[in-house]
Amino acid sequence: MLSLGRRVAFRTATIKRAARSVTIGCSASMATEAAGGKRRVLIVGGVAGGASCAARLRRMDEQAEITIFERGPYVSFANCGLPYFVGDVIKEQSSLLVANAAKFNKWFNVAVRESTEVVAIDRAAKTVTARDVTSGQESVHPYDYLVLSPGGNAIRPPLPGADLPGIFVVKTIPDANAIKAWVAEKNAKSAVVVGGGFIGLEMVENLVHRGLKCSLVEMLPQVMPPYDPEMVEPAHERLRAAGVDLHLGDGVAGFDRAPDGGLIVRTAGGKAHAADLVVLAIGVRPETTLARQAGLELGSRGGIRVDEHMRTSDAAIFAVGDAAEVKDFVTGEQTLIPLAGPANRQGRIVADVITGNEPSRFRGSQGTSVVGLFGLTLAATGASEKTLRRLGAAHQKVYLHINNHAGYYPGAKQIDIKLLFDPKDGRVLGMQSVGEEGVEKRVDVVAMAIQKGATVFDLEEAELCYAPQYGSAKDPVNMVGMVAANVVRGMHPLTTWDELDLQQLATDPGVVLVDVREPSELDKVGKVAGAVNMPLSGLRQQLAKLQDKDKKYYVYCQVGLRGYVATRQFLQNGFDAVNVSGGFKSFQQQLPDRSAKL
Amino acid sequence: MLSLGRRVAFRTATIKRAARSVTIGCSASMATEAAGGKRRVLIVGGVAGGASCAARLRRMDEQAEITIFERGPYVSFANCGLPYFVGDVIKEQSSLLVANAAKFNKWFNVAVRESTEVVAIDRAAKTVTARDVTSGQESVHPYDYLVLSPGGNAIRPPLPGADLPGIFVVKTIPDANAIKAWVAEKNAKSAVVVGGGFIGLEMVENLVHRGLKCSLVEMLPQVMPPYDPEMVEPAHERLRAAGVDLHLGDGVAGFDRAPDGGLIVRTAGGKAHAADLVVLAIGVRPETTLARQAGLELGSRGGIRVDEHMRTSDAAIFAVGDAAEVKDFVTGEQTLIPLAGPANRQGRIVADVITGNEPSRFRGSQGTSVVGLFGLTLAATGASEKTLRRLGAAHQKVYLHINNHAGYYPGAKQIDIKLLFDPKDGRVLGMQSVGEEGVEKRVDVVAMAIQKGATVFDLEEAELCYAPQYGSAKDPVNMVGMVAANVVRGMHPLTTWDELDLQQLATDPGVVLVDVREPSELDKVGKVAGAVNMPLSGLRQQLAKLQDKDKKYYVYCQVGLRGYVATRQFLQNGFDAVNVSGGFKSFQQQLPDRSAKL
Repeated sequence: MLSLGRRVAFRTATIKRAARSVTIGCSASMATEAAGGKRRVLIVGGVAGGASCAARLRRMDEQAEITIFERGPYVSFANCGLPYFVGDVIKEQSSLLVANAAKFNKWFNVAVRESTEVVAIDRAAKTVTARDVTSGQESVHPYDYLVLSPGGNAIRPPLPGADLPGIFVVKTIPDANAIKAWVAEKNAKSAVVVGGGFIGLEMVENLVHRGLKCSLVEMLPQVMPPYDPEMVEPAHERLRAAGVDLHLGDGVAGFDRAPDGGLIVRTAGGKAHAADLVVLAIGVRPETTLARQAGLELGSRGGIRVDEHMRTSDAAIFAVGDAAEVKDFVTGEQTLIPLAGPANRQGRIVADVITGNEPSRFRGSQGTSVVGLFGLTLAATGASEKTLRRLGAAHQKVYLHINNHAGYYPGAKQIDIKLLFDPKDGRVLGMQSVGEEGVEKRVDVVAMAIQKGATVFDLEEAELCYAPQYGSAKDPVNMVGMVAANVVRGMHPLTTWDELDLQQLATDPGVVLVDVREPSELDKVGKVAGAVNMPLSGLRQQLAKLQDKDKKYYVYCQVGLRGYVATRQFLQNGFDAVNVSGGFKSFQQQLPDRSAKL
Repeated sequence: MLSLGRRVAFRTATIKRAARSVTIGCSASMATEAAGGKRRVLIVGGVAGGASCAARLRRMDEQAEITIFERGPYVSFANCGLPYFVGDVIKEQSSLLVANAAKFNKWFNVAVRESTEVVAIDRAAKTVTARDVTSGQESVHPYDYLVLSPGGNAIRPPLPGADLPGIFVVKTIPDANAIKAWVAEKNAKSAVVVGGGFIGLEMVENLVHRGLKCSLVEMLPQVMPPYDPEMVEPAHERLRAAGVDLHLGDGVAGFDRAPDGGLIVRTAGGKAHAADLVVLAIGVRPETTLARQAGLELGSRGGIRVDEHMRTSDAAIFAVGDAAEVKDFVTGEQTLIPLAGPANRQGRIVADVITGNEPSRFRGSQGTSVVGLFGLTLAATGASEKTLRRLGAAHQKVYLHINNHAGYYPGAKQIDIKLLFDPKDGRVLGMQSVGEEGVEKRVDVVAMAIQKGATVFDLEEAELCYAPQYGSAKDPVNMVGMVAANVVRGMHPLTTWDELDLQQLATDPGVVLVDVREPSELDKVGKVAGAVNMPLSGLRQQLAKLQDKDKKYYVYCQVGLRGYVATRQFLQNGFDAVNVSGGFKSFQQQLPDRSAKL
């Protein structure tokens, strides 16, 4: 703790120094501009934030001299499309090129220097040194404002064999082309993907789509690390159903070349997975080399520290995108959000700030995300339960398993929802959802709700589109809001399977687990061992005869609705009862191996 | 005006009398309850609001005596599914039955009297008279609280021949069965649907789906009357493409029997449309007979007047659903919203108010709606431009034509968006959208935004799900927010095709219409007659040479983006320029026959 304290003190000193030097720099720059000179803006990195910044800068200031340096060969490309390009879902590389240098020049009069890396910043002189990556030739460029949009680097772990041929990352078009070429040249039949996040899952799907036999190795016991584990259980099922060998909870220890010329991925758990191809998708590290060398302040998560105007510790230098550390809108924590949407918004904000258009601020990121996986969609916005637990933040959760549209219209699909909210005032903190249809729609609605500080009462009242092929008179967003609102109102005591004391349920005669489904359902889908069946259809009659008012009744049904109705009957008849959120469906998803234990 | 004034005065008097009688009634009721009696709640009409009210009442109060009277044979059914049941998309009638009397009884201990019509209310005695529609037998039932959820009646206009066999409405399951039976028995090959609203369009789609040749007759010059006309132009196209004879701007004058046994629909315009079947879908009239006879106050739109607790002018009587007049959340106007979602919410609110659970209020309705039509989706939330014009409310609009997801991912579809907002503070007033995919998702997000009083700046910043098959880094919601925000900021002068002075454009040399697309595009998709082509790619060079700084330049491109970029160049070079929202796409949709005029 002491060393951390010293480090913080040191950093504060650094900030102050930077601020001082900046003041001087700023004045100089303003003098330049005031003297009729044109604003000189240099942008390092063009992909998302840098390109957005350049385009808006030009719309705000026709006179500015704007230059983008991009170390890669393409100034702006759709890196979110790379896995689908590898999978031949996107056929043409040209589709990925959002804007080329010629367009930037013609539309925006922006000079683009591709394959040019900025290798040094001289903050005092306000210049950068750029190096042509082909010729190695260096040049010096003055700036009034410098915008750092260097992105992140795909992490290659320092493990034995990590640099063997056939081991790839997926961050750039050349990366994708290298994988495609390797698959074609080696006639690759199998792949190991390391890392079960967004890119890892998309790579698995696309490699399977190309006909490769895939293994997925993930160090954590779940895929999609930002999501809560029970919400990704359907993704695990979907991966296995697609023939993917899923190895969870086992990290990679190293790589070997196999006798047949293939690769072997060795795990910490002692396993060896052979494949013709390995894709590393274990994350992105913010590219901060340039910023660090220039003495810019970094944040606690290792990204470039910026204020709400995306200004670094040097007031003439801004940072946006994957390399910038931003505030989590919900938790207030510092965070790194390697997503295109926030990067684009940040680029625009910087353009506004530089041109003095308005006091444009980045309000933080909610981490809204979505991934498609073999027909399944997983999406989330706001804080996860694990984040809230880690922060010790008060939270309550409800689960919902519900049709994406009216059940009476053909083709309804179940979606699973987990909503996190403040138990005191009902403020929505986060939502995760999984299913085949209509998943990201509900997450988008709740993303807007969170942005506007909405409560579960607002979700309850939301007026959303309803026709039977699109939704329900009570949309899933309404339903999850209603359940949560009743919890906040105190009329719906609710618990979750993971909070139940299994030991107590099995041994304590004062605690009763009640299954209120009809006997035919139990026969069909199973029940939780040890539960007493008291079907809702006859519950009133049973309660009239039930004597044990000093026992505690945990009530569940199939998805939670009847459990709620039953719980109200218990409570109003003087029994102490709690509904188990999400019912048997949640039990199956959260505790697939638990039935035997009860 | 004088007579209206008198009427208002009279009504006020009525309210006061009602309030007095209510006070007494209330005390009596409370006395009953206080004396250990059970709350007796009678509900008139079960379909949506009544059923929701009953279920929640029971969850709040296990002791209450709850009875639902439903004049139809089914206490609660999915009336939004009726057109699809006629079309055999929904195969089984049983699918439409949301809950039957047995379930209401078993789950909720609610007595359900189907095929029983309440024919009179004695407010002083606090009783209703109910009549068994089969036997005609009447019975009297006391209440502490009465909930009116009578719904609406499908309008049968008082026109000659309107009662001829073969002319149907679509409001109940028996209505739908009658249509199905007629089609089968008469081997019907053709139909005329009268009315182009939600039900009319859904009936056309479903009758076509059954193989009938359909004509659609609509009095207004557009289908979907709540929507602005230019936004439903794609629906007109889609109807014609599906082989529907579309007759707009022509009302029905009467009906005749044809010599061959079929029907003839005669229009005000002198046309005669023959068909084997006629469906009247010209709207719903709130069922207020009972309320009127009981002396309950009606609202300015003809519905039952209620306060924000859904209480009528008699404090022991509530009204919900299609028959209740509510407040428009955006405009503050009184309105009738015959939609299931608001009805359900209102039913729940009444249950809360009766049981004293909390000060539950209905916050008004936004009129969020959606309809599917031969693969096209039309959706809207908030106020339309025509409503805002009628009210004289300040508003600005922008059009957007944009891909539903990243264009680089296969299968992107264009969606058209119209956003209405307050030009002063940017508050979002309404949005309409049409397209094949992802339409209602964006409307739902904006519905939540409007509910929370969001501005276009909030839409600009929204953090929504992005992966290439779901959306874009700048989602359509962001994009329309960005365009509108730039308008509010004053950096993007914008007009729309309908606001352009055609005459001036054609005759005034001081006004120039500039097309900034590339020449190849103009050759391919056409241009607006009289426009000067100044491609964006070379605009800077042209502007440097352009002298006419005292002219006004109206700029357009294909969808509006390049028009914006070009407008900024014009402005910053000292020219007076305005972008035309939505570009050539909007021109085509809004003014399909206008090209020749310019």
